[in-house]
Amino acid sequence: MLGVDPDPLALWPGGPSAGGQGLAPAEAAAAAILEHCRALIDATAEACVAVKLQLARFELLGAPGWTVLAQVAEHARRAGLLVIADGKRGDIPVTAEAYAAGLLGGQHTPFGHLDGLGADLVTVNPLMGRDTLEPFVAAAREAGAGVLVLVRTSNPGARDIEDLPIAGEGTVWERIAALVHELGASAAQGDGLSDVGAVVGATEPGHLARARELMPAAPFLLPGVGAQGGRVEDLAAAFAPGRAGGLVTASRSIAGAHRTHGGEPAAAARAEAERLRERTWALSGEALAVS
Amino acid sequence: MLGVDPDPLALWPGGPSAGGQGLAPAEAAAAAILEHCRALIDATAEACVAVKLQLARFELLGAPGWTVLAQVAEHARRAGLLVIADGKRGDIPVTAEAYAAGLLGGQHTPFGHLDGLGADLVTVNPLMGRDTLEPFVAAAREAGAGVLVLVRTSNPGARDIEDLPIAGEGTVWERIAALVHELGASAAQGDGLSDVGAVVGATEPGHLARARELMPAAPFLLPGVGAQGGRVEDLAAAFAPGRAGGLVTASRSIAGAHRTHGGEPAAAARAEAERLRERTWALSGEALAVS
Repeated sequence: MLGVDPDPLALWPGGPSAGGQGLAPAEAAAAAILEHCRALIDATAEACVAVKLQLARFELLGAPGWTVLAQVAEHARRAGLLVIADGKRGDIPVTAEAYAAGLLGGQHTPFGHLDGLGADLVTVNPLMGRDTLEPFVAAAREAGAGVLVLVRTSNPGARDIEDLPIAGEGTVWERIAALVHELGASAAQGDGLSDVGAVVGATEPGHLARARELMPAAPFLLPGVGAQGGRVEDLAAAFAPGRAGGLVTASRSIAGAHRTHGGEPAAAARAEAERLRERTWALSGEALAVS
Repeated sequence: MLGVDPDPLALWPGGPSAGGQGLAPAEAAAAAILEHCRALIDATAEACVAVKLQLARFELLGAPGWTVLAQVAEHARRAGLLVIADGKRGDIPVTAEAYAAGLLGGQHTPFGHLDGLGADLVTVNPLMGRDTLEPFVAAAREAGAGVLVLVRTSNPGARDIEDLPIAGEGTVWERIAALVHELGASAAQGDGLSDVGAVVGATEPGHLARARELMPAAPFLLPGVGAQGGRVEDLAAAFAPGRAGGLVTASRSIAGAHRTHGGEPAAAARAEAERLRERTWALSGEALAVS
């Protein structure tokens, strides 16, 4: 799966030139990022089933970034890809409803229907507890979409809070995993997967078997492959259900493949996405497993 | 302190009429929300020191919402108020840098300098650990701003994860509190307050004394007064340092005061903000204590 995480300092060459059209910086950066994202998606769509859009990179551009975010999501959909809005939002229920509406199906108002981003999956942060997750789950069900809850993330700091041992049993992340299983259990889809999934970092593969045990039906989003050091070969446990249970995502290692492997950016990205797909397929042992 | 949390279903009457100008729904809603927020700030500015902008409500409108967010922040600054960007962001370090740049001082790029929102304080979510907080702290120091870390939130679900007992000592939220103290300790300001503060819900005042013990120099943002049931009278422990250590924030109870107390919305909001200020002043025992 392709992570779209457009750093304005590392866009592919060949896009709109900086400041060449008298645009404000945010507008010029947004135009270049749109070009970059479209090219990246075009290059890799055949080797992917989904794009993960890193909202921070679009939010950094203000209003022009939010316009481009919607355009990139639309471009990905037209390429036949699922859209994951990676915002890791989380707030009290009334606020979670607003976040969910914005990223999923929108909201009816006296001003007309506000369109949401129409994402197929959204990432959410569970620190504030179950009542802050439920509005996302409800809005996702309404929209035919899904929710991916941060369970055990890929960064070193995950040890500080997520790995804390709870008195009597397990860790914080295992408690979150139990919550994910509860929230999703009633809504298992026809393919046996729940509509509430988990983000489980690929950098600590030792946790995957336990995560799968706690969340047997949850789709796993597996970030951390590539730039963060995770290896696809270590992720077999995620695919234990024998289904499309894992979404292996890489961002910088695909978009920046030409820096590592040489060649033209689009061709290098395509080759890297295909390598990732092949390794994932080999691992999951299923032609339908996702890359 | 005024919480600005504009629900498109509960705006003050008298703003732009719905769909009256041939605008798209998001643009019409954004125009009405801008009008509402300006009127709310104008009505209450004299009784407040800060506004807390709930990013979800602006994000729901897409690009027009992001434009209005910047305009509301500017309006608040011109009214002499501090601006708190309440987004509760949190992500891996490279992404946290992008969020921090967007909400604080912006970023230099080949396209020119991208302006940030210029917030004075940003709320952040610590679930993913210390390395995800450090980019916000660094960007805030660079911009002369501060960070407010979720420690023990005001919603019932706070009990699910934040209140979990850690093996051997304390709870998850107490561990987060210790992290907040560590991050802020080296940067205590001239007034004795740190530039890394804490969000501590006003709905469970029993936690406040312990929170103050763990974070003696942290400014506390105290949400949950009003619509969520918290009472100013119960918050004395937050002000134990004898300084402007607490920011008592109310959103719906101020903007919706006319529904509770009757009268014209602006006058009712002003009266409610003044009531909140007086109760806070009485509690903190200092004329400079913040409302």
